Amino acid sequence: MYRLLSDIRVVEGASFIAAPYCTLLLSQLGADVIRFDAIGGGPDYRRWPLGPGGDSFYWEGLNKGKKSVALNLAMPEGRELAIAIVTAEGKDGGIFVTNYPETGFLSHDSLCSVRPDLVTARILGHADGASAVDYTVNCAVGIPYMTGPEGDEHVPINHVLPAWDLLAGSTAAVSVLAAIEYRKCTGLGQHIRIPLSDVAAATLGTLGQIAEVAISGADRPKFGNSLYGAFGRDFGCADGKRVMIVALTSKQWKALIAALDLETPIRALEAELGISLESDEGARFLHRERIDAIVEQAVARYTLAALSQRFKSSGVCFGVYRTVQEALTDDPSFVESNPIFANVEHPSGCRYPTPGFPASFSSEARRNPYPAPALGQDTEEVLTTLLRVPSAALASLHDQGVIRLPDRLLSPS
Amino acid sequence: MYRLLSDIRVVEGASFIAAPYCTLLLSQLGADVIRFDAIGGGPDYRRWPLGPGGDSFYWEGLNKGKKSVALNLAMPEGRELAIAIVTAEGKDGGIFVTNYPETGFLSHDSLCSVRPDLVTARILGHADGASAVDYTVNCAVGIPYMTGPEGDEHVPINHVLPAWDLLAGSTAAVSVLAAIEYRKCTGLGQHIRIPLSDVAAATLGTLGQIAEVAISGADRPKFGNSLYGAFGRDFGCADGKRVMIVALTSKQWKALIAALDLETPIRALEAELGISLESDEGARFLHRERIDAIVEQAVARYTLAALSQRFKSSGVCFGVYRTVQEALTDDPSFVESNPIFANVEHPSGCRYPTPGFPASFSSEARRNPYPAPALGQDTEEVLTTLLRVPSAALASLHDQGVIRLPDRLLSPS
Repeated sequence: MYRLLSDIRVVEGASFIAAPYCTLLLSQLGADVIRFDAIGGGPDYRRWPLGPGGDSFYWEGLNKGKKSVALNLAMPEGRELAIAIVTAEGKDGGIFVTNYPETGFLSHDSLCSVRPDLVTARILGHADGASAVDYTVNCAVGIPYMTGPEGDEHVPINHVLPAWDLLAGSTAAVSVLAAIEYRKCTGLGQHIRIPLSDVAAATLGTLGQIAEVAISGADRPKFGNSLYGAFGRDFGCADGKRVMIVALTSKQWKALIAALDLETPIRALEAELGISLESDEGARFLHRERIDAIVEQAVARYTLAALSQRFKSSGVCFGVYRTVQEALTDDPSFVESNPIFANVEHPSGCRYPTPGFPASFSSEARRNPYPAPALGQDTEEVLTTLLRVPSAALASLHDQGVIRLPDRLLSPS
Repeated sequence: MYRLLSDIRVVEGASFIAAPYCTLLLSQLGADVIRFDAIGGGPDYRRWPLGPGGDSFYWEGLNKGKKSVALNLAMPEGRELAIAIVTAEGKDGGIFVTNYPETGFLSHDSLCSVRPDLVTARILGHADGASAVDYTVNCAVGIPYMTGPEGDEHVPINHVLPAWDLLAGSTAAVSVLAAIEYRKCTGLGQHIRIPLSDVAAATLGTLGQIAEVAISGADRPKFGNSLYGAFGRDFGCADGKRVMIVALTSKQWKALIAALDLETPIRALEAELGISLESDEGARFLHRERIDAIVEQAVARYTLAALSQRFKSSGVCFGVYRTVQEALTDDPSFVESNPIFANVEHPSGCRYPTPGFPASFSSEARRNPYPAPALGQDTEEVLTTLLRVPSAALASLHDQGVIRLPDRLLSPS
């Protein structure tokens, strides 16, 4: 939690990952984020993983530090309140992040008639408005046919990290900050459309993978756990632990050869093939079977502890394969002593390590991450302070079922 | 390419994905990005995939639209020029994105002694400065042990999308824009440190996966291609094509049941198990074997074309598994008629579909993406216009080997 963007007020009307992740990043940098939901919660309110009491750790993770307003969005009065929150005055307000349908009561055009300088960032599945989620986008850009063991060309393997959601969310955050900057100069609002499928297509293009296929006419096959185009693969240690070893640069390659005492066999291989593995990263990939066999044998001689020591002192680029539980238990730098994490109690009643923003800023002290809000906990505050709804009107909104406040607030005082 | 950030000047001294991706996003939003490299190129200059002439499509993809300056960074004079470019005056300059080592001639502190309000965004492997890349971070946060076929618990499967690099890059872009905003208010510069490993750890926390393991004490196993916690899996059509079908929400679930005429068997299953699959997304996951068998049989009755038609008219959330080549050939909306792509000729001599920024902005017309620069093509321009190096001095820098200019520029005029 940093206070770099403390002037900015963002309203979120959204669910699942991409849009809430966008506003989470802005919130962690200091923006005031108000999320509104239907009374009872949006479609992501019970998304797994769940805690022992059935609360969603996913929802808590994505919404920590935000204000929560719960409205009956099926009633015209509830929709009016949502519109009023989105378009509330203030030069640093008027920023709306959503995945609601493009047409309807939260359309950018209708909101603009209330606040013309509104910046709306809208996450879509496809650019034409067709539905899509991370998993349906991922299969359509070819990733599952490149993932997994070599040879199984027709067996797609899905990713488990919702990378496209997360990238769409961070792209939306970059876009919103750029649009705010632009609005300051020009006074103009903006409807920003961020389709998941275009984030995926653009990313493949940026990594050279569309050029590769368009120019060569051939798809990239599966290469198992091998890194494409240089040296890298998983190897087993003497104690059954596995490591990922990478040598993209000459320096990393030299470090690996030195750490495993492989000068002799590698020099012999280079002489036999008439190549330089140090200067030609592509040769390390083309001849990976030969190299892998040499490295495999060497790695298998060491326990993970012994190997790690050798690798660290030589500067080899490597990582240990482990489960989340192993990472939590074996490596204090992962979470336990990591300054980006703090133990925070959330509305689920569970206290657990909660991350703040992953980057650190030298001119600002890091503050502990906030807990997630209880659903609707800030309804009264937002309505009275932002919309200046009088207390009597609050009670009436509650009685009509437009909002739901804790009973004690409605007792006559 | 949009002109939202056209006042900003960013200098990149970096290689590979994360830092260049950060500045690519800023460049696509209008920032003037100057990348400097060693003469002959940095360690990413030959990164695969390569074009027919050995040029890197990867490098072209990540550096399109940037200015390229090539300097002899092994010489003190070359390093001085790099420092001068990073710290050049101008209120919207002084922004530096790098993955150079934290100590050394490009340390934030030494650069700050020249320009105190400098914003440096530094991508690191680990927070303590230890080396790490996407693949070595991914294995250490448990993803490969959650990926792939159920049962193969001890067979890690690497991802092929460098998601942590991309997320670190976009997190850096968000951070840089926040730091610029903060500098405008306070005059303060900033050293922003973005460790890949912390981006990964924070993301797992944000998705609820650290809470899940910390509270339950158990790791999440592999679930094959099944989506965790709701309904979703890949299914085969009558013609051998595969689709990913997802039902996270009640609406998506109802659409699927309607599209496949599954009311009767699903109602029977619900009655047998005493559950409501429409209202309880978790039940769709817990009983996935039973549901999958019903859906599998239904999907197998249709060709992909027939199924797509049914799914589209019912609003089912689904995607087709395809290779990049199939996506390019079969689906004009992917690239061919997609307004975010344009055919651009790059320094490799190849012309191919090149993506611009994946989001669109209503107040700004989209401009075509630029080609990548030829290495060092902007050295003379940047030195003469930004650093105001006189022409005679340019020639002398060339003769000393500090920079390399095309010969014609050095001939006496």
